[in-house]
Amino acid sequence: MPSFRFFLPIQVRYGDVDAQRHVNNAVYFTFMEQARAAYLQHLGLWDGRDFDAIGIILAETRCTFLAPIRLETPVRVGVRTVRLGTKSMEIAYSIENASTGQVLATGQSVQVAYDYLKAMSIPIPDAWRQTITAFEGPDPASASSQELSREM
Amino acid sequence: MPSFRFFLPIQVRYGDVDAQRHVNNAVYFTFMEQARAAYLQHLGLWDGRDFDAIGIILAETRCTFLAPIRLETPVRVGVRTVRLGTKSMEIAYSIENASTGQVLATGQSVQVAYDYLKAMSIPIPDAWRQTITAFEGPDPASASSQELSREM
Amino acid sequence: MPSFRFFLPIQVRYGDVDAQRHVNNAVYFTFMEQARAAYLQHLGLWDGRDFDAIGIILAETRCTFLAPIRLETPVRVGVRTVRLGTKSMEIAYSIENASTGQVLATGQSVQVAYDYLKAMSIPIPDAWRQTITAFEGPDPASASSQELSREM
Amino acid sequence: MPSFRFFLPIQVRYGDVDAQRHVNNAVYFTFMEQARAAYLQHLGLWDGRDFDAIGIILAETRCTFLAPIRLETPVRVGVRTVRLGTKSMEIAYSIENASTGQVLATGQSVQVAYDYLKAMSIPIPDAWRQTITAFEGPDPASASSQELSREM
Repeated sequence: MPSFRFFLPIQVRYGDVDAQRHVNNAVYFTFMEQARAAYLQHLGLWDGRDFDAIGIILAETRCTFLAPIRLETPVRVGVRTVRLGTKSMEIAYSIENASTGQVLATGQSVQVAYDYLKAMSIPIPDAWRQTITAFEGPDPASASSQELSREM
Repeated sequence: MPSFRFFLPIQVRYGDVDAQRHVNNAVYFTFMEQARAAYLQHLGLWDGRDFDAIGIILAETRCTFLAPIRLETPVRVGVRTVRLGTKSMEIAYSIENASTGQVLATGQSVQVAYDYLKAMSIPIPDAWRQTITAFEGPDPASASSQELSREM
Repeated sequence: MPSFRFFLPIQVRYGDVDAQRHVNNAVYFTFMEQARAAYLQHLGLWDGRDFDAIGIILAETRCTFLAPIRLETPVRVGVRTVRLGTKSMEIAYSIENASTGQVLATGQSVQVAYDYLKAMSIPIPDAWRQTITAFEGPDPASASSQELSREM
Repeated sequence: MPSFRFFLPIQVRYGDVDAQRHVNNAVYFTFMEQARAAYLQHLGLWDGRDFDAIGIILAETRCTFLAPIRLETPVRVGVRTVRLGTKSMEIAYSIENASTGQVLATGQSVQVAYDYLKAMSIPIPDAWRQTITAFEGPDPASASSQELSREM
């Protein structure tokens, strides 16, 4: 179970709520995207302005829904890099009630390092690897391997 | 020019930004809706939970765009009731840079008092009228009349 | 009352429906934007691909809501240029039930001719003026003047 | 590799496109939701109107992104039930270029049978099981088991 060193509070919007009167499933991915962008900015890996310089492209994403989010729910999203490969990295998310800590949903995404101007995937830059490792602790990759091995 | 006694900070989302790389026009109406719902809650006119008890339905809305909103722009929305009619009320919005006070957009909306369970419009309840007048000052209706007369 | 020569069918989405169980107000502006982009493509004024070449920027937009749109409502949006000024143009919209012709909402938008690469407003190009006039009929501008004079 | 007997054409919207100038990742889940709702209606399992009678709640969803979707891309989404359990069912999606058949993204979702009025999960009704099996062919469950076994 990863512990999260970065959390982003999310402002749930009236317009996020669908006909079932809880937050629509697609909006969870908007929450994770928002938290991911904030995490990259927090780590100094993106300036929040230059969309051609964001450095990663999404390859896969998933979410497991545990409890509904309502308009009044105070939400925060935990973000943590759980795997750093050669060309891809995996991020885990915990969408939580910010007051109670209850986990409302969990998510994962796989990103590929990407040069938007050249429109091609690239190796993860060493600077990213060092920054992320410094933030997340000694060895996110091997931590992730342990998790994966527990899954088998 | 109305002065606003209620402001809601808005968290601009990565997903609010469109291909022009500023916040999409439709999202401004989501911002105004969000601020309107928060204003109703701030005044104790809605509990933020019971969607059948929100008490108003939108009849008309408009927005004038003055400057683009970017992902990094700190946004707040001012909300003020500027007219209280028999069955309808008008709300004005100021979408602003929360740091500089620059007005990025202005908006208006007309709401009709509405009973969602009966699916019919109703007169604005006296309790609403008193609460709004108490909050906005002596006479939002006549203030609005003056504004309208200046427009002609 | 303008007659519309261009209509775009709209696919209402499950995610367009909000907690009130009809289409959310902000989504009407997405419908109008979609119809506006299709109209520009229909007239050969935009290729649908180059977002730096779309040629206009939104200055103002409004919508009047007449009847709710539900998930099953077959929707089409009529688009018509109703005014061609020196630097700006006004477009009118009719959001309709495509089966019955019932008008569900009406809208207007004001656009300013804009060079996105230079980030500055420009006069409406003559080619636009000719194309729009040829499509809409002899004189959209004076038709609009008559409408406005009727409003006073 | 499942073959899909149901496809829904999707109208890509200007507003679906984000700052990267292709369809935003969260919108893929809106596309899948839209296709899922249409699939349930096509099978007669939902009337498209009563949101308390939709019969399932989303437990998990995922998407793998293979190629960007642009505003002009003609999109269709294939939907197929690939597993029918006691209380849950799994649906697979293929988001495709409707002209070329190129697969742009694949997705999966797990739904739990749910009584919205009682706010509790229920066993999948026999009528659903029969309808889905009749539509998808003799044995979606065992087909899925084979797929899963291939994954291990």
